[in-house]
Amino acid sequence: MDATTQIERSLARSLEIPRGFGEPPLLVAAMRYAVFPGGARIRPRLCVAVARACAVDPPPLCTAAAAAIELLHCASLVHDDLPCFDDAAMRRGRPSLHRAFDQRIALLAGDALIVLAFQSLARAAVASPSRLGKVIAIVASAVGAPAGIIAGQAWECEPQVSLSSYQRAKTGALFAAAAAAGASAAGHDGACWYALGERLGEAYQIADDIRDVVSDAVEIGKPTGRDAALGRPNAVLRLGMASAIERLEGLVEAAVEKIPDCPGANDLRAHIRGEATRLLPRELARPAA
Amino acid sequence: MDATTQIERSLARSLEIPRGFGEPPLLVAAMRYAVFPGGARIRPRLCVAVARACAVDPPPLCTAAAAAIELLHCASLVHDDLPCFDDAAMRRGRPSLHRAFDQRIALLAGDALIVLAFQSLARAAVASPSRLGKVIAIVASAVGAPAGIIAGQAWECEPQVSLSSYQRAKTGALFAAAAAAGASAAGHDGACWYALGERLGEAYQIADDIRDVVSDAVEIGKPTGRDAALGRPNAVLRLGMASAIERLEGLVEAAVEKIPDCPGANDLRAHIRGEATRLLPRELARPAA
Repeated sequence: MDATTQIERSLARSLEIPRGFGEPPLLVAAMRYAVFPGGARIRPRLCVAVARACAVDPPPLCTAAAAAIELLHCASLVHDDLPCFDDAAMRRGRPSLHRAFDQRIALLAGDALIVLAFQSLARAAVASPSRLGKVIAIVASAVGAPAGIIAGQAWECEPQVSLSSYQRAKTGALFAAAAAAGASAAGHDGACWYALGERLGEAYQIADDIRDVVSDAVEIGKPTGRDAALGRPNAVLRLGMASAIERLEGLVEAAVEKIPDCPGANDLRAHIRGEATRLLPRELARPAA
Repeated sequence: MDATTQIERSLARSLEIPRGFGEPPLLVAAMRYAVFPGGARIRPRLCVAVARACAVDPPPLCTAAAAAIELLHCASLVHDDLPCFDDAAMRRGRPSLHRAFDQRIALLAGDALIVLAFQSLARAAVASPSRLGKVIAIVASAVGAPAGIIAGQAWECEPQVSLSSYQRAKTGALFAAAAAAGASAAGHDGACWYALGERLGEAYQIADDIRDVVSDAVEIGKPTGRDAALGRPNAVLRLGMASAIERLEGLVEAAVEKIPDCPGANDLRAHIRGEATRLLPRELARPAA
C-alpha cells in the first residue's frame, strides 16, 4: 500500500469514534473537519518513509505514529487559528474550524485531537508494546513544553521573543519527531534521526516563507502576504528569493546527508528530494535530481 | 509515604520542565499555576488507593497514572473557565488562569498539560512497559471523544443535551478511569473497577450540587448559587437537601459494595468512606462509619 493511502486510512480509523456512547455530534463532526480533507501530510509522509527505510515490514505502530503526528499538527492549526491568536478566517481553502462551527467547539476539538493522538498510539502498540514508551516520549516532547509546537506558539505571548527558539519549536520540533518516531517505532534508535528532521523542518519554514510571498491565496488555501503585513520574520524578505531558494535546497541536501545507516537509505534519499519539490510553488519547483 | 505526599511529588516531578531548551517562561509558569496549589486531589487519591488495594508495592506507573489524571483534570478546569465557556473569574480561591495570565496562555497551558499527562505516563512505564498501553487507553477514553470529559463539555455546545450523557462524561468518566487506571497500573484488570468509580463520580456530582447550594464562596474558592442562577440541573434543587444527602450516602455504599476481590479491600472500603465525608461542606459531614 502506498504511504499516502496508509496514512489516510490510519487517520480515518483513528476518527471512527465509536457510536452509541452518547457522543456529542458537533464535537465529532468538528474533529473530522479538522483532519479531512488534509493538507500535504508532509510530516506523516516523512515518518512513514523513515520507518520503511529502517525496516522492511514496519509494525502498525509506525503508521500510528505518523497519524498521531498529523492529528497533533491539525490540533495546533485549529487552536492557532482561534481569534485570540491568528483569527484566521480560512484554512485549507474553506472556513477555519471556529468559523464553520464556533470557538467553543474549536477549543474542544483541538483538545480531543491531542488526546486521540496518544490514544491511537496506545491502540496500535499491541504488537510492539515495548516501543510505545519511547515513541510517546518523542511525540510528546515535540508538542509540549519546553520546546514543542505548543511552546513555540507560547513565544507569541512573550514580551521578548527568541526567534530561533520560536521557529525551532513551532516548526522544527514536529519534523524532527516525525523522523525520530518513525525510526523508533520501527525498532531503531530515534535519537540518530533528529538531525535529518530538524533540517527538513528548517527547509519547510523557508518554503512556507516563499509561499507567503509568491503564492496565490487560492492555491494554498489561506491568505498570503501576511508576514510583510504583520512585520513577521520571513526568509525571502530578509535574503531575497534566489538566496532563499538556495538555502532551502542546501538544507534538503544537508538533511539527506544526515540519513543514518539503514537498509532503505537510497529510497529515503529519493523520497526526501522528491518531497522537496512539492514544498515550493509550482512555478518555482525544479524536478528532483 | 502517604498518598497525598506521593501525588504532590509526582505532580511536581512532572512539572519540572527541563531548563536550557529556550522554554517560554509564561507558559511554564501558567502550567504550574494550574496545578499548584491543588484542590482536594480526590481523583488521584482514589487512583492510588485502588492501586494499593491491588498490590502491596505498586510500581511507579500507579502514581504516574494518578498524576496524569490530575493534570488532565486541571487542564479541563483551565479550558472550562475560559470566557467562551464559564467565564470564571475565580478558581481555588484566586484568579482563574486566564485572568492571572491571559486567554492565549490559558489555552496553551491547558494543551500542554494534556500532553504532559501522557508524557509522564510514558516516562514512568520503564519498569512496567507492558502495562502502559492499557493505562493510556483507560485514561484517554475518560478524557476524549466520545464519552470523556472533553465530550462532556462539548454537550454544552449542543442544541439538545442528553443530561445523563453530559454528567457521565463530564464527571463520572474521570472517576471511573481513576479507579480503573490504578488497578491496571498495578497489574489488575481495570475493567472490573469501573463500576466503583462510576458510583463515586455520581456521588461527587451530588456533593458538588450540595456545595453549590449551601457553601460559602470563600470556603470552596469559587462562586456558589450558580446552578439556580443559570437554571442548571442540581440534585438539591430537584430532590431537597435531605434526599440529596441520602442519595449521596447510598452511592458511596454502592461504590464500596463494588470493590472487586483484592488484597487491600478492607483498607479501600475505609478510604472511600473517609473520602466521602470530605465531599460535604463541614457543617453537613458526618464522621465515617
